[in-house]
Amino acid sequence: MALRVDVLTLFPRMLEGFLTESILGKALERQLLQVDVHDLRDWCTDKHRTADDRPFGGGAGMLLKPEPAVAAIEALQSPGCRRIYLTPDGVPFSQEIAQELSQQEHLVLLSGHYEGIDQRIRDEVIDQEISIGDYVLTNGTLPAAVLIDAMARFIPGVLGEEKSLTHESFTGKLLDFPQYTRPAEFRGKSVPEVLLSGNHGEIEKWRLAQRIEKTRQVRPDLLNNQPS
Amino acid sequence: MALRVDVLTLFPRMLEGFLTESILGKALERQLLQVDVHDLRDWCTDKHRTADDRPFGGGAGMLLKPEPAVAAIEALQSPGCRRIYLTPDGVPFSQEIAQELSQQEHLVLLSGHYEGIDQRIRDEVIDQEISIGDYVLTNGTLPAAVLIDAMARFIPGVLGEEKSLTHESFTGKLLDFPQYTRPAEFRGKSVPEVLLSGNHGEIEKWRLAQRIEKTRQVRPDLLNNQPS
Repeated sequence: MALRVDVLTLFPRMLEGFLTESILGKALERQLLQVDVHDLRDWCTDKHRTADDRPFGGGAGMLLKPEPAVAAIEALQSPGCRRIYLTPDGVPFSQEIAQELSQQEHLVLLSGHYEGIDQRIRDEVIDQEISIGDYVLTNGTLPAAVLIDAMARFIPGVLGEEKSLTHESFTGKLLDFPQYTRPAEFRGKSVPEVLLSGNHGEIEKWRLAQRIEKTRQVRPDLLNNQPS
Repeated sequence: MALRVDVLTLFPRMLEGFLTESILGKALERQLLQVDVHDLRDWCTDKHRTADDRPFGGGAGMLLKPEPAVAAIEALQSPGCRRIYLTPDGVPFSQEIAQELSQQEHLVLLSGHYEGIDQRIRDEVIDQEISIGDYVLTNGTLPAAVLIDAMARFIPGVLGEEKSLTHESFTGKLLDFPQYTRPAEFRGKSVPEVLLSGNHGEIEKWRLAQRIEKTRQVRPDLLNNQPS
């Protein structure tokens, strides 16, 4: 059975283009996974459909109120599902997490105000808190899309036969090597000769050297965390 | 004059919902910034409008060809503009980069295949390479949206008067404190008493202690990089 993902957000229309276009749009069409987007306000019971309120103790920004979010997640959840809150103070998202999530049966993603939500929502109905990076967004809907996109690439069939996950950034914790396609010469700049040589051993050697050099220059932090 | 952003992508429709909804939709409507999305295929000159090709030296995935991408960026750029390529092997995006970009006049964002593009595009027409995180997506269009969203929050007027950037994750390299809103009791869980005390000194002290403790638990790496 295909992975089911429920996204709970105050801005369901933000995902419209994302869910119909590109590789993800095709994967949904082919039912390789299923994504349903829900408007959190459907669980607001007051006449103004209020989803947020001011923080106790003062401070800027509005917080998601506990009642609608908890009611929504309890309505959407299934036994054994993973309930994830997208938040800048979560655990950093990674290829490892994407792959692990792609093997689940059912995910419920809560996209709150990125400034924060009532802590009791987190305590009551959230299993995992994930951050897509060390920056703050207006809300968690784009992060939910990012999580779905990265995860979908690990679902068999989504990338198609011609593609693979074997060579790309973060494989072995190294950045990718420089890539070249036709034409062999463009504005006086030629493709490195080794890539035209047909010598696969030499090509692999060159690519690995380039990966190490690029990682050393741009992301030395990755080299300090090499798998042993 | 408002910041102008040109986004160059193979999937312009992916951004439709993002550009009309939420805080960003309102900011565009109020002309606090301007975002134009361009279809890279408009610069493909062959009859099949081919934007990508296979890599020299073998390997999986398709790469953006140099000619259309370079022609497109040269058509969109202006003197002094910043030309940015979204790529998993770029420099990690941060609040500092978001703020710095928000002060520019004109950005051109290239959203390529996330597996890679011809290196000569990067050499020829890219000023800055940015990664939104250590994971791989199907293409760079969501990362462009993430960059725009995070950056827009720094543009005066976008968040409105009632909000501020002073208290949030990564201010002083610490994660955020737990937040609470009404009701004061929810399912037997009460808001911490200090937040109801009205004693601002005590509230600040509690919040800072919570921030340090949360950062220690979830992101000890941030504590090792404290500003001196």
